[in-house]
Amino acid sequence: MTKREQGVREATVADVARAAGVSKAQAARALGGYGAVSEQVLSVVVSAAEELGYRPNQLARSMTTGRSNSIGVVVGDIENAHFGLALRGISDEVREAGYTVVLVNTDEDLTAEVGAVQELLQQRVAGLIVAPCSSTEAAHLESAHDHNRTVVLFDRGVRGWALDTVRVDFAEAALQVGRLLLDAGHRRIGYISSLRVEEPYEQGTDLGLSPVADRVGGIERAFREAGAEWDRSLVKLNAASDDALAAACADLLDRPGPATAVVCSDSRIALGVLGQIKRRGLRVPQDISVVAYDDFPWTELVEPPLTVVSQPVYDMGREAARALLRRLGHRVPAEQLPLRAHLVERASVGPAAGSPAA
Amino acid sequence: MTKREQGVREATVADVARAAGVSKAQAARALGGYGAVSEQVLSVVVSAAEELGYRPNQLARSMTTGRSNSIGVVVGDIENAHFGLALRGISDEVREAGYTVVLVNTDEDLTAEVGAVQELLQQRVAGLIVAPCSSTEAAHLESAHDHNRTVVLFDRGVRGWALDTVRVDFAEAALQVGRLLLDAGHRRIGYISSLRVEEPYEQGTDLGLSPVADRVGGIERAFREAGAEWDRSLVKLNAASDDALAAACADLLDRPGPATAVVCSDSRIALGVLGQIKRRGLRVPQDISVVAYDDFPWTELVEPPLTVVSQPVYDMGREAARALLRRLGHRVPAEQLPLRAHLVERASVGPAAGSPAA
Repeated sequence: MTKREQGVREATVADVARAAGVSKAQAARALGGYGAVSEQVLSVVVSAAEELGYRPNQLARSMTTGRSNSIGVVVGDIENAHFGLALRGISDEVREAGYTVVLVNTDEDLTAEVGAVQELLQQRVAGLIVAPCSSTEAAHLESAHDHNRTVVLFDRGVRGWALDTVRVDFAEAALQVGRLLLDAGHRRIGYISSLRVEEPYEQGTDLGLSPVADRVGGIERAFREAGAEWDRSLVKLNAASDDALAAACADLLDRPGPATAVVCSDSRIALGVLGQIKRRGLRVPQDISVVAYDDFPWTELVEPPLTVVSQPVYDMGREAARALLRRLGHRVPAEQLPLRAHLVERASVGPAAGSPAA
Repeated sequence: MTKREQGVREATVADVARAAGVSKAQAARALGGYGAVSEQVLSVVVSAAEELGYRPNQLARSMTTGRSNSIGVVVGDIENAHFGLALRGISDEVREAGYTVVLVNTDEDLTAEVGAVQELLQQRVAGLIVAPCSSTEAAHLESAHDHNRTVVLFDRGVRGWALDTVRVDFAEAALQVGRLLLDAGHRRIGYISSLRVEEPYEQGTDLGLSPVADRVGGIERAFREAGAEWDRSLVKLNAASDDALAAACADLLDRPGPATAVVCSDSRIALGVLGQIKRRGLRVPQDISVVAYDDFPWTELVEPPLTVVSQPVYDMGREAARALLRRLGHRVPAEQLPLRAHLVERASVGPAAGSPAA
């Protein structure tokens, strides 16, 4: 066995003390920057520490202060540009306060989320920003809260728990999406989301405080305004994997009386839906209309450019970070960034085939 | 001051021992699962631990074993879908071996990268996967290596240091890109990348072991084959910010004798370039040809669909994880995933205006 394979032990305070010929207490005071220590001791200790490659142990310090300088961020799908951009907002805001961001991705899996929160707590992060994959199962987040690791929720609230939650106001934008499609004569409006729920939407599953609840609710309000009824079997949830997304598209597009419009809950869903539409040789908007949530650069470059709901994702990240920093005792300006979604009309919505508007 | 504001201290082994009425050593043995402890002591200690919400302290255990169960991943730009997909590959591979992935984003900034590596070492990650922002400055990575935190490089090698590096073989694909454009009559071929370098490319800056070196090298080889010379002022690096990217586009598109083709080093660059082309009212490929690296779903949905170089990003992530797991002593199948890029011709390359091919 070589030395490498045995593992090279990191230098400890005791090693440094021995090399410097001082007591462990003196070495610890010199290295930790606390208590009285002579210039001469400081000098020999620092030299010995450098020679041994001693690395001040953040973990050991964490055990004294109880905190590291990290903010833990837990998201469901880092491949979704939504979270990438939010992460930039979070990082930009906390960096100045001296925090590093460590991120864990959960693939929208509750077990993975529970594990991620536990792992981050064990690493003694100063606080957590979580985009919870469930709006109803939150025992692990309550537990983190009870142990005074401040938790701020991102995107999705959790019912029955008054925690800081940074959410965009979708009510108006979602209503506008519904009106836009109904005015164009659409009645068979599909909705696809990756939100994980136990039961199909038409059986009355609880969408909790998720943005999906707001977005689906907006379309429902528009239907009520129009005195029409929405066929709830057109709302497809659980489309988190590529296979599930393809199956949702097949159900909406290949059924008798197919959807004439599809609302995509995020940009990953939109990419999948456009691919499925193309594969079937359908044209947007002549054969089917499309609206997507999140205004990312590619949505303007496809043909036709997509009608989207824009949300201030970067600012959402910054607001989540600011809420957390306030809880951690930092002074953060009180004004809140306005977090409102708005409809951006481009060219992917047309009259429904066979409707009076066509 | 309320109790919450004072901060709730986490229960320690000492608290558990006190509540259970046993010695601290007994409690530590029972909670740590080491040494001899009676059934009766184990039972009272576990009950007390549950009642106090005692959380086995990963950090404290780390200080004994020297390692946590986390793999640190350091990337330059998590908003680039390339890294999001690679992260999925890494996570899928290490999860079964019992590791969590913690990610730090550096915005392609060397100082941030140095800080990230230090932070992760202090959190005692078991190993690191780093997409270094510089192919030449690597003292911090060598230091991590010396302290036996295994480091695997992703995407970019570091010269003069024989560390495991997971890179795609671009030589053939990059040559094909050059030939494709030269055959279509292009001589004024622009190249844009976010790679940070000290000096402009034409002044002979060292591109190190970066994929950019391979990609630019492939075009140069194609020029040599054709007996033509490439104007190196058309190679624009340092386009990491939106502003820098816009400036690079302006230099290529608005100069006298503008570029007739642009090769985009990643998908973020491609989105920016297409936006700038559209803003100028230019048409692809009639007015300007475009080739992009990374075959993401949106590249097929734009009009015209983009000619791209596809790279097995997910498999790259898996290979990086497997290399790291091998170093950490895990048994991982020996066969390597083939990591070769290939050209996917679609419709964004046309004859150069005014060339014999036009």
